[in-house]
Amino acid sequence: MTTTEGASVQLDHLVPPKEMEAVRQTSADTCTDSISLSSSPSCKEKEPFFTVRTMKGDVRETGTPDTLDDAWVSGRRGDMIRLTGKHPFNAEPPMTALMENFHTPQELLYVRNHGDAPQLDAATHKCKVGSLVSRPLELSLEDVKRFPPSSVTMTQICVGNRRKEQNQIKQGLGFNWGPTGVGTITYTGALMADILDAAGVLPEDGVGEERWLEGVGADETLRNGAYGTGLPLWRCMDRSLQVLLAYEINGEPLSVDHGFPFRIVAPGIIGGRFVKWVKTLDVVEGHPKNHWHWHDNKVLPPGVEVSNVGKEGWWQRPEYIIMDMNVNGAILSPHATEIVKPQKSGDGVGTVTMKGYAYSGGGHRILRAEVSTDGGLNWKLARHTDQLKSPTGRCWTWTFWEADVEVQTDRETVVCFRAQDDAMNIMPDVPTWNLLGMMNNAWYRIMLRPSGSPGELEAVHTLWATENDPIHPANVHARVPAGKGTGEAKEPPSHQLQVKNENRMETRGMRMSSACEASSFSASLQQWIPSAAQREVLRKVAVLSGVAVCTVGVLEGVEVLRGGRGVFFGRT
Amino acid sequence: MTTTEGASVQLDHLVPPKEMEAVRQTSADTCTDSISLSSSPSCKEKEPFFTVRTMKGDVRETGTPDTLDDAWVSGRRGDMIRLTGKHPFNAEPPMTALMENFHTPQELLYVRNHGDAPQLDAATHKCKVGSLVSRPLELSLEDVKRFPPSSVTMTQICVGNRRKEQNQIKQGLGFNWGPTGVGTITYTGALMADILDAAGVLPEDGVGEERWLEGVGADETLRNGAYGTGLPLWRCMDRSLQVLLAYEINGEPLSVDHGFPFRIVAPGIIGGRFVKWVKTLDVVEGHPKNHWHWHDNKVLPPGVEVSNVGKEGWWQRPEYIIMDMNVNGAILSPHATEIVKPQKSGDGVGTVTMKGYAYSGGGHRILRAEVSTDGGLNWKLARHTDQLKSPTGRCWTWTFWEADVEVQTDRETVVCFRAQDDAMNIMPDVPTWNLLGMMNNAWYRIMLRPSGSPGELEAVHTLWATENDPIHPANVHARVPAGKGTGEAKEPPSHQLQVKNENRMETRGMRMSSACEASSFSASLQQWIPSAAQREVLRKVAVLSGVAVCTVGVLEGVEVLRGGRGVFFGRT
Repeated sequence: MTTTEGASVQLDHLVPPKEMEAVRQTSADTCTDSISLSSSPSCKEKEPFFTVRTMKGDVRETGTPDTLDDAWVSGRRGDMIRLTGKHPFNAEPPMTALMENFHTPQELLYVRNHGDAPQLDAATHKCKVGSLVSRPLELSLEDVKRFPPSSVTMTQICVGNRRKEQNQIKQGLGFNWGPTGVGTITYTGALMADILDAAGVLPEDGVGEERWLEGVGADETLRNGAYGTGLPLWRCMDRSLQVLLAYEINGEPLSVDHGFPFRIVAPGIIGGRFVKWVKTLDVVEGHPKNHWHWHDNKVLPPGVEVSNVGKEGWWQRPEYIIMDMNVNGAILSPHATEIVKPQKSGDGVGTVTMKGYAYSGGGHRILRAEVSTDGGLNWKLARHTDQLKSPTGRCWTWTFWEADVEVQTDRETVVCFRAQDDAMNIMPDVPTWNLLGMMNNAWYRIMLRPSGSPGELEAVHTLWATENDPIHPANVHARVPAGKGTGEAKEPPSHQLQVKNENRMETRGMRMSSACEASSFSASLQQWIPSAAQREVLRKVAVLSGVAVCTVGVLEGVEVLRGGRGVFFGRT
Repeated sequence: MTTTEGASVQLDHLVPPKEMEAVRQTSADTCTDSISLSSSPSCKEKEPFFTVRTMKGDVRETGTPDTLDDAWVSGRRGDMIRLTGKHPFNAEPPMTALMENFHTPQELLYVRNHGDAPQLDAATHKCKVGSLVSRPLELSLEDVKRFPPSSVTMTQICVGNRRKEQNQIKQGLGFNWGPTGVGTITYTGALMADILDAAGVLPEDGVGEERWLEGVGADETLRNGAYGTGLPLWRCMDRSLQVLLAYEINGEPLSVDHGFPFRIVAPGIIGGRFVKWVKTLDVVEGHPKNHWHWHDNKVLPPGVEVSNVGKEGWWQRPEYIIMDMNVNGAILSPHATEIVKPQKSGDGVGTVTMKGYAYSGGGHRILRAEVSTDGGLNWKLARHTDQLKSPTGRCWTWTFWEADVEVQTDRETVVCFRAQDDAMNIMPDVPTWNLLGMMNNAWYRIMLRPSGSPGELEAVHTLWATENDPIHPANVHARVPAGKGTGEAKEPPSHQLQVKNENRMETRGMRMSSACEASSFSASLQQWIPSAAQREVLRKVAVLSGVAVCTVGVLEGVEVLRGGRGVFFGRT
């Protein structure tokens, strides 16, 4: 795990802030505050720095300037919807823009930055390829370009795409992505298998754990070290799966927000594994140790909540690490709040042409895109675009669909959308809530209702629905987990098979010592947290950031938490 | 398409018998008749022969002898549940037997025979490998064994596993599989890639259609030609996917019912592609032409029914051809009708240990096995066995799960089971009905209710539930399609991509001439259908068999239909 400046101590065991749940339940306003702490460049090294996820991500903040940290970044479109306030840059395109092109322009592709975008010089930045290889490499952009170039057109998703609908059921630990955390682009780069062949992956001895390729970026200002995660090595070595170290999108160099000079790309797999600004590539035995590999990109069982995720050790369980994208889709036209005029097709009935996208993961093709206006009793097949196939028959791209839908003109109509892929994966009726709000793929619902003007209907999307609307997730089905936990039984069943390396989770960095080293902080704490006001802001940060905050000890009755570039304290 | 003896004419367009729906609606008894027409071996060549699917497959016919056609087959277990009457042999094991072993004994593995099991001599039977290859081969069993042997432990499913639950909603075109059309075995054989390399697949010219490997068996007595179907060629050439021409199960030679001397095996893919008794392997351009490739192993949209499947051309559409197994599972203990004594755990509450299996396709691992006793509001995580991983990280096997479930002792409790795989595919709450009743993977429900004896509960499974029981599919949700059709819009959307070879369905044998050639039958018809009684039986057969019956013309006001070894007529 990368250590951060200003915090030389070991991480202690991971505990989410205890008051988090209480804060959520008692103060919705607190949760929707957008808090961004940044420091001037001159004192960057000295002061604590922290960025937060907000709960109010669906409000577009027009005209908000970038923080100083990202102020050097150019080319960000003003109409991208910022989901976490000013900083970091987490953004999705407007519904109205996403479907203008089947291939998404780079600047319209959603961005997920965990912190500052690192300012890298292509002439000097190198990626080290190492660990279980016989010929460690240091690759500049020019070096990577010397490998035979490979291009793949693919749909890339944020695992949080459509997360807001999960947060509408119950607030989880992530910020509110709408339905446009997705795009389809053509990446060009070197095949990872070529790079690994050049580095010479050491032969396996047959007794070690399954191997992974760990990639870590240059965004080293994050509170838990640079963002990094892994892919199973076999996926990287299988040329038919087209895993790349990519340096171009749509024929252009990667923009800063998409990982200049290069990023990992793995078609059919969640975007969370597409490490940007790659600084190291390591062939490792067993899962990578990087913090983010364990604390992000997981779908935990619905009974796992803030209250038990840490104490029951759920972060340390590798089986919930997700890889393939799932089947998903949305209605984007009519967009949220759009006023439409249905074509009259009968008494009190009209027709509205609806459009949207659908995709799946793992190379699967969309088999059916369907809409229903009777709650799923009957489905109308939408027409949809063919999907490009890779040379080995995989479909890595989305499909655009279109359907003429008959709706009521004098009262509300709920329209449900679902897709099914060729492996029979189907978008489920109801979401299954999960703590990180990931991979939400329940039927996409919109409502059309009389706007007040004759002949016009107003479109309401689920994620902008209020609790009074029938399509609000809490009203679709009463399937909000009642907080009973998972009821998990841990003993193996009688037919337990002992399989090599399964369920080994006691990895370095994950099973941390519980010994407190609070005393080592006492001197620097006064410097880091100069005022009571700043301490209060930091407390809010701790509460809001949730997942990634670590307790490092208790000092004079104050729980000491650790942030990105320093230490701050939580509740007294 | 293979032509059958006694029918030298071209097939006409495919039309399901028009009266089929009416018969179903008016005469449930007719549908449950088990009709098996067979002839004595001596006149086998001369008389029409036909085998049918029955609608009453869940009734075990104890002690029914094999027909003469299969009388030579030995080793069939008496406790296998026969689903289509005496013949052909379609059988699944009892619930109580399937989970005795993680590895299913060969004789307990479900069997799906479309007709007679062919009696092949390993010394003389050969498989021809041909078409787009440079070195056509003829392989005996000994030849196949000369390739380096490869073994793979895998779960194999019948695509109809759990079909009865779909038929409970509305009778489709398939017979009633329960939840044991599945097993886990170790196959050993030659890698298909090795065989194809030996045959020398011709280089692609880049302009042809996607290539497939078509396998056809030796069961040539079927009404539509020997059973055959295809796999995309790339899957067969990718050694990591372990497609085999297998000659052993669990270290034993294949039994007759599993394809002696060899069959195609493709881990993670539906059993319907595992052609038995392989006689030819052909590398072809575009989809194979075999009847069964188009008329079986499809999941059609829910609005496609008997009334529109033929006239709207659904059989000719390749996009509904299914490949990967989907995520599925069941509760097998307590088994259907079992009386259990819950461990008392409170007032009016007791605990019952439940067991079952779960699997997924495409190499995906089961992530969660869960039970709910409150209709899906809360889920209890079952403990489950680890899953074996292939050398390239794929999970080809099922998992056995176990959970202690709290139930009511004084009134009924409905227990729902669902599983999710690591690609986020989750068993849906409610089935989506499809005409062939395939891939049904809705939550598996059982009900425990007081048996009448103190302290005892009776288990009822969905597939044995009556319409008065809450777990009957028709009562779970009113999601029975209302027969409105698919409402499909056929024009392409504005973003239509022209992708090479997609949606080309005008393949030989599939786009048949609509010209009737009834006159050519007139001479032989009298010979083939000697009596009015036999004609009546044949009519029923035509009605029951549905899918595979073809109209070949109209003769003297009688619609002429074509069966396996001859021609018979349908309604006047």
